[in-house]
Amino acid sequence: MGDSPLLTDLYQLNMMQAYLANGLTGTASFELFVRRLPPGRSFLMTAGLAQAVEWLADFHFSPDELAYLEKTGRFDAKMLDYLAGLRFTGDIDAMPEGTVFFPHEPILRVTAPLPLAQLLESRLINLIQFQSLIATKAARVMLAAPGKVLVDFGFRRAHGAEAGLMAARASYIAGFAGTATVLAEMLWGIPIYGTMAHSYVQAHEDESEAFLSFARARPDNLTLLIDTYDPEAAARKVVALVPTLAREGITVQSVRIDSGDLVAVTRGVRTILDNGGCAAVKIFVSGGLDEESIAALARSRAPIDGYGVGTALTTSQDQPVLDIVYKLQEYDGVAKRKRSTAKHTYPGRKQVWRRRAADGTIAGDVISLDGAGLPGEALLAPVMRDGERVRHDPSLAEIRARAARELAALPPTLRDVGVPGSYSVAIGEALNALTAEVDRRIAASR
Amino acid sequence: MGDSPLLTDLYQLNMMQAYLANGLTGTASFELFVRRLPPGRSFLMTAGLAQAVEWLADFHFSPDELAYLEKTGRFDAKMLDYLAGLRFTGDIDAMPEGTVFFPHEPILRVTAPLPLAQLLESRLINLIQFQSLIATKAARVMLAAPGKVLVDFGFRRAHGAEAGLMAARASYIAGFAGTATVLAEMLWGIPIYGTMAHSYVQAHEDESEAFLSFARARPDNLTLLIDTYDPEAAARKVVALVPTLAREGITVQSVRIDSGDLVAVTRGVRTILDNGGCAAVKIFVSGGLDEESIAALARSRAPIDGYGVGTALTTSQDQPVLDIVYKLQEYDGVAKRKRSTAKHTYPGRKQVWRRRAADGTIAGDVISLDGAGLPGEALLAPVMRDGERVRHDPSLAEIRARAARELAALPPTLRDVGVPGSYSVAIGEALNALTAEVDRRIAASR
Repeated sequence: MGDSPLLTDLYQLNMMQAYLANGLTGTASFELFVRRLPPGRSFLMTAGLAQAVEWLADFHFSPDELAYLEKTGRFDAKMLDYLAGLRFTGDIDAMPEGTVFFPHEPILRVTAPLPLAQLLESRLINLIQFQSLIATKAARVMLAAPGKVLVDFGFRRAHGAEAGLMAARASYIAGFAGTATVLAEMLWGIPIYGTMAHSYVQAHEDESEAFLSFARARPDNLTLLIDTYDPEAAARKVVALVPTLAREGITVQSVRIDSGDLVAVTRGVRTILDNGGCAAVKIFVSGGLDEESIAALARSRAPIDGYGVGTALTTSQDQPVLDIVYKLQEYDGVAKRKRSTAKHTYPGRKQVWRRRAADGTIAGDVISLDGAGLPGEALLAPVMRDGERVRHDPSLAEIRARAARELAALPPTLRDVGVPGSYSVAIGEALNALTAEVDRRIAASR
Repeated sequence: MGDSPLLTDLYQLNMMQAYLANGLTGTASFELFVRRLPPGRSFLMTAGLAQAVEWLADFHFSPDELAYLEKTGRFDAKMLDYLAGLRFTGDIDAMPEGTVFFPHEPILRVTAPLPLAQLLESRLINLIQFQSLIATKAARVMLAAPGKVLVDFGFRRAHGAEAGLMAARASYIAGFAGTATVLAEMLWGIPIYGTMAHSYVQAHEDESEAFLSFARARPDNLTLLIDTYDPEAAARKVVALVPTLAREGITVQSVRIDSGDLVAVTRGVRTILDNGGCAAVKIFVSGGLDEESIAALARSRAPIDGYGVGTALTTSQDQPVLDIVYKLQEYDGVAKRKRSTAKHTYPGRKQVWRRRAADGTIAGDVISLDGAGLPGEALLAPVMRDGERVRHDPSLAEIRARAARELAALPPTLRDVGVPGSYSVAIGEALNALTAEVDRRIAASR
């Protein structure tokens, strides 16, 4: 389902037919970018490029899809012929996955014949915006809990299967230790984590009996869930069971608490465990957590070793949308620009240059025309040329390492998840000059 | 990807192995319900049952999936054998899609051997919560714009391909006229709508020339986008083009405006169109709309005939999560209950009875034990028995008709999208008695 070229809006097909009918088949450049940061965010992080490239590399209409389009009666023979032979033959330039980015910075550019480039818009936005949204959210959770074990628990309330899987991937890129979603390990080798649910305890008449039977059946990385009834009472049961299990060679690695006042409960449980000779048993918490509640728990110095983050992560619950757009920047060698109120864009094919302070901290970006050759690191790199990949796809481990370097290089002003900070993004001289030129041309033509 | 049984959390597989190891393979009943309404919501609407039944009817592990599970080394031979032969052999009872529901009301019950029922949790929640979330959001948009044409424009910012498609389906169920997402027509026959984008206008040097070329290439259901530069100037160009197009047999059906102060702009454009002899040309608006802004436009009596609703719809942006849970209610004939703070559940296999006022308006629900035989309409009905469907799957048209009846039967207190209203949901005597009994049993066992 996720690879269909019909994952598009009808107007794209309408426009394609009109472009073909009118000979508008010249080369177009479209760029993906966000117009503004979601409230409360200080930076964004790219993700989803691998899925976009995979989709483009195998882009084609299947016989069933062509038969359906013909049957609708909406499209003429010229259009249907064009679609039957259509492959992605264009160029892609993009920021690598795991890169920090800011508003108005192009994160991906498509250069291709106009009808083809137009058709790709809907799914390209769909793929890149969601993973970037979740990588950004996960990066914030990382900043809130430095050094802790973070696990994605949110498949169930993600918006469908693809969202759940992509969220596992995007949060792993941003630095999570792994996910609970099993298929993410099979597809991408992402480490998976799992404990037990309340229903396991409830299916037994006795909580201690449930712990014992689970421990014997699943002795590896053993985590016991202790809040089905009363966490402190359950912690005492764990303390009582530890010697029995030790004789069988089974170690209780940790306990999980999924509800209640986590500061008070984890302190109470920590004391019971420590007094009962279980100082090595770690405390893992979950249940409605997000980066702000995790930051508050960290400030309170609650004795917590790891966090399962679910719904808030996989839906980016506080800000479930990244306002990513895909705009025509150049057609047939001529720069283009949209001027509607509050939705203006900068014309032309652009590049982003990033400067760093002596300690490696990022210190300011300039957006200007591709080829302007400004100082700093140029963030967009060639990914596809004439429909072919021009470099090996980076591994998930490489992407994750890049994201870790990016987060380490954030200036202090961008690191506080509770207080948004600002970052300098300037428009270069060449881009300002072109913008003014395009405005004069539009004014003259009207 | 969407049909894999590995769309589950690792702890489900861990628990399965423990259940099998300990002979806990008796019959379990789990129910799906929400604990509370999202802020601002007065009611919820079910959707997604068809996809859940489809998944269950074909539930099995593929050879690749089994090979992967074996290779992980996590599972014993007994577990792998069990999974190799596993099919869905249980019962499903559920509210039909398009039904209005409230907190604590079970919307779907799974009755199956405990290890199987446990495994299903993650994907069942994932499928039902998302479509119900969007059907609810779309129902609110319907209430805000009675009699208007509403179209889903939100594929691109939905959370992935499955989310975009499911959102098209759920909003169509709730009463939308259709969607822009082409694949939704191919898969489900949902009507699709499409106009043109700003890039089409920008690809031409002249806006009038763009309108003319588009009209000639796509004359059916012709809608021209008039806000690339200046909507009122563009409306004058449309007025000037209408006679030319009429001579060619082409009718401009409507114009679309995607930005700006929609009250002022639509009034200005309406006046230009009416004065130019184009009173029949409709005005369609889009661009960041939700039920509240649509209700405000309706109150302002802006001359708008239809709305394209995008991101706010397909992400349920203001409330992107429905807190649906799947809880064990009975195991091996014994009722179960979770008592953690703020996460309590009612035990046993339940049914919901709904009473109506003389005019058909819904007037109060009672949740009690299945078989209590209370007055009113019983909302859950058998869907699968022993793994087989026990009724024909309703068509999308039938589901949509049900949803329309449900929305028509909402009491006035639940119809205002700006002011949440309340509705009476009572707990029946038999359920209260069972709850007390389970609590006594839990207290005695601890």
